[in-house]
Amino acid sequence: MGEFDLIARIRERCPSRHDVLLGIGDDAALLQVPPGQALCVSMDTLIAGVHFPLQTAAPDVGWKALAVNLSDLAAMGAKPLWATLALSMPEPDETWLDGFLDGFLALAESEGVALVGGDTTRGPMSITVTIHGVVLPHQALRRDAARVGDVIAVSGTLGDAATGLRGLQQDSAECPWPELRHRLDRPTPRLALGRYLAGRAHAAIDVSDGLLADLGHVLSASRVGASLRLDALPTSDALRQALPDLVQRHALQCQGGDDYELLFTLTDAAWLSLQAEAHRQGWQVTAIGRVEATAGLRLTLAGHPVDPPARTGWDHFGAAT
Amino acid sequence: MGEFDLIARIRERCPSRHDVLLGIGDDAALLQVPPGQALCVSMDTLIAGVHFPLQTAAPDVGWKALAVNLSDLAAMGAKPLWATLALSMPEPDETWLDGFLDGFLALAESEGVALVGGDTTRGPMSITVTIHGVVLPHQALRRDAARVGDVIAVSGTLGDAATGLRGLQQDSAECPWPELRHRLDRPTPRLALGRYLAGRAHAAIDVSDGLLADLGHVLSASRVGASLRLDALPTSDALRQALPDLVQRHALQCQGGDDYELLFTLTDAAWLSLQAEAHRQGWQVTAIGRVEATAGLRLTLAGHPVDPPARTGWDHFGAAT
Repeated sequence: MGEFDLIARIRERCPSRHDVLLGIGDDAALLQVPPGQALCVSMDTLIAGVHFPLQTAAPDVGWKALAVNLSDLAAMGAKPLWATLALSMPEPDETWLDGFLDGFLALAESEGVALVGGDTTRGPMSITVTIHGVVLPHQALRRDAARVGDVIAVSGTLGDAATGLRGLQQDSAECPWPELRHRLDRPTPRLALGRYLAGRAHAAIDVSDGLLADLGHVLSASRVGASLRLDALPTSDALRQALPDLVQRHALQCQGGDDYELLFTLTDAAWLSLQAEAHRQGWQVTAIGRVEATAGLRLTLAGHPVDPPARTGWDHFGAAT
Repeated sequence: MGEFDLIARIRERCPSRHDVLLGIGDDAALLQVPPGQALCVSMDTLIAGVHFPLQTAAPDVGWKALAVNLSDLAAMGAKPLWATLALSMPEPDETWLDGFLDGFLALAESEGVALVGGDTTRGPMSITVTIHGVVLPHQALRRDAARVGDVIAVSGTLGDAATGLRGLQQDSAECPWPELRHRLDRPTPRLALGRYLAGRAHAAIDVSDGLLADLGHVLSASRVGASLRLDALPTSDALRQALPDLVQRHALQCQGGDDYELLFTLTDAAWLSLQAEAHRQGWQVTAIGRVEATAGLRLTLAGHPVDPPARTGWDHFGAAT
């Protein structure tokens, strides 16, 4: 099986979109951007053993490779349209490729994303996806737009993926917490919430490096500080059972990456409206703190100040922008 | 030096463009596509030891990573605007990164391309670039648009890069043919020619896999055949001196990849106009054959039919789309 067979195999499984003038198989794809919209582009690499455990199933790798990119568009408030895929593998492996495509295309189809091009190469296992979407330029959710007085809120629950990874590291054969492992392998990009927040929230980021690290990116870009209530952090039942110890749990919720929840700031009025919409849509959203004028981050537990965990997150060489 | 230092180092060296609403440093870039134009996207990976010799200097790797992507846009007739870069390296190495950026940004600046985002990860050395450009949709140069009777023409000279690589493989310390080595390390994307050809030529492709392989892509996409005159293949003086043997030379010119010249088809009238324009612009363009209705590729040498070389090109797993 050669490169062109691999590409043919990918091509025949890829549904298109009306705005794809030319997809896989030429020197480049030709795409029609809706007038008045800004093009929104993000690119993330997953490397085996760095960004996902080596034993991750091929469909989960495919899902995650697209999900982490879609999550970046969710954090901009953008609607995803097209993806390109650069896939390196040591040997052409059609079984693995088919599994990878199962996961990748399941998510692509559910979000209406077309795979329009890319590259396949022989090399150490690595997957890079570039995702393209659109958003009205003045509605995009930027990191530098948090304002003093904003509510800080987050979607879903925090700490699940990091705890799932820890479970895997303790027992490489089987993670003792399958629900948490699932959160690690199959993150859900919060696209519908992101699109709702576009033009309604101020700043947003996705929690990929860890809550404190990612909040830190927003605060420094916006030149503000914040207070955060540890006892408000949204926690899944599965995590509560897996980690009954509060200190351990808070540390993983603050530092653990890979949750791909949205972290965003908005006015009290916008927060009230969001709560009503979230109720209608079945979104989980939780207020966890407040943007303040004083630089730095202040953590509280039951109203009392506490020190931040020693390591703030996944900010060493290896994470994604 | 961590990931965020690397990104800061890249960011501070990157000039922007007026149509970049948001560049490096957020979850995604925001870009303004000119109205009426189609977005043209291509993505290519370079892996050390596969797509460039391990001893290649960092600035040459940077140049080539962008050049091979720009060459894809040239082959579409598109104007490049923005690039994203996914860079994996085993250890954060600021000296290598600075050298890489020297080469990458020299080419980016000369073509007016802004680096607007990407990802840095720890892993085996690998570089993936996604390039974005624009072209009027009906003027784009597709692989499937060759017509019977078209002149087949090519830019520049053929076989130089492959011979430069062979020289390196024979003597890893120093390629005996520095000019040919330079063609391997610093390919020139033929962007101005590509833009001229948009709307004027029929089909185009860049010669990355090898002349016969790439012509084969055009012929099969267009469901036509062709005849090709081996004695018409444009040959540099350096190649003539390096490989005086005609059979060896033709084999490398037909099979060798990495030249990144444009291969295109056009009517006789368009070919005449191009020759006049090429004279004004200083472009080298050469007619090497003709599109025919009969499927398959027929080679001639001094008017006599010859068999094609046994291996048609770089079509095994490892090349780029």
